[in-house]
Amino acid sequence: MDDPAAVRILAFDVFGTVADWHSGITAAVAAEGLPVDAAEFARAWRAGYAPVLARVRAGELGWTKLDALHRLILDDLLPRFDIPDLGEEQRRRLVHAWHRLDPWPDVVAGLTRLRAKYLLCTLSNGHLALLARLANHGGLPWDCLLSAEVFRQYKPEPAVYHGVASVFDVPEAEVMLVAAHHDDLAAARVCGLRTAYVERPHEFGADAPKDVSPVAENSLHVRDFAELADVLGC
Amino acid sequence: MDDPAAVRILAFDVFGTVADWHSGITAAVAAEGLPVDAAEFARAWRAGYAPVLARVRAGELGWTKLDALHRLILDDLLPRFDIPDLGEEQRRRLVHAWHRLDPWPDVVAGLTRLRAKYLLCTLSNGHLALLARLANHGGLPWDCLLSAEVFRQYKPEPAVYHGVASVFDVPEAEVMLVAAHHDDLAAARVCGLRTAYVERPHEFGADAPKDVSPVAENSLHVRDFAELADVLGC
Repeated sequence: MDDPAAVRILAFDVFGTVADWHSGITAAVAAEGLPVDAAEFARAWRAGYAPVLARVRAGELGWTKLDALHRLILDDLLPRFDIPDLGEEQRRRLVHAWHRLDPWPDVVAGLTRLRAKYLLCTLSNGHLALLARLANHGGLPWDCLLSAEVFRQYKPEPAVYHGVASVFDVPEAEVMLVAAHHDDLAAARVCGLRTAYVERPHEFGADAPKDVSPVAENSLHVRDFAELADVLGC
Repeated sequence: MDDPAAVRILAFDVFGTVADWHSGITAAVAAEGLPVDAAEFARAWRAGYAPVLARVRAGELGWTKLDALHRLILDDLLPRFDIPDLGEEQRRRLVHAWHRLDPWPDVVAGLTRLRAKYLLCTLSNGHLALLARLANHGGLPWDCLLSAEVFRQYKPEPAVYHGVASVFDVPEAEVMLVAAHHDDLAAARVCGLRTAYVERPHEFGADAPKDVSPVAENSLHVRDFAELADVLGC
């Protein structure tokens, strides 16, 4: 059914899959000296993302860059953590911490191997400027950034997944989405893409390991990008 | 006036500036065994680009990927070179030769140095898939591909130059266009971008050197990407 041998394009989810947002945001919150459990605050910030994105997708907010969404969530979060009066400059610096997230340690070497055989692109709800800054910060060897910004729709809208095949003018079966999230992969699969699940057990912090059990429907299940390169013969 | 110290984003023209289209297309035409002067045929193919792009910009053709424009020009060119009956497969291979152009020898090392200090993006009339394939072929370390495809308009429309500043949410003066073509740079300058001219004296082949005289209005004039990195302190 889903022979990965036909795949020519690897499309990567970014937050959690490529970039270790939890470590980066936890460090930034701690660096600002916020009187909170920084690891917990980072998780709460990220947890605010799905609900606010649902508001955008429902048309309640127009197409919005992720910086602005991160700021909306932060402004909502601060009173809940009893720091309602945090200054403008600190809020701005915290939002910009999302631009400087480190990649997981296996990412650069893994992508470099994969690039010799596949076209590599992002497929993220982050806007292009944010993805470009992460690429620059981490030295990520992408061939192309694709983003909700290009399609003016967010994952898991089918148009975003079909959009990758359309941009590269290939059948959907020649595209594989690589992600650490089964819901993203499931939405891609419905659109005809191949799927590779990557375990990121510490996506939410080493103190909050997540379930990384396989789902049989995925084309591949790998520990990290090194194993992905091994499995794909790179 | 145009202090390059404010620049944070370098946007690069691709064909001629980054990619040596003349050598690549000449080699592809020769490899197909076409009974023509391959260097001359490559120049004629490229010369057909401006007129066909003018038809697109005039609205005579809709937004069109560069592959399709290259094919249009080729189909028009073959009878003029007395080879009207070239097969479909050969035409397809010739169009795809534009996907595998080598970068000029200074490009990868120069971009790698520049990336440590600047965000690097393309700004090309080529479509994303073509730019991605060139990036993959040449191992080009872009942070982001920007293209006519993203803006649905072609250079020299002002919207394309303003689009770079808009995507990155910075003033136009923080963006510098790097190109081997004075007309591209002039159009960018009108939009408030900084401009760097790169000499590519053999863009049209070693047998047809072009005038690479400076134009005083450019912020910088450099021999190649190594000198650009030197001048920008990278």
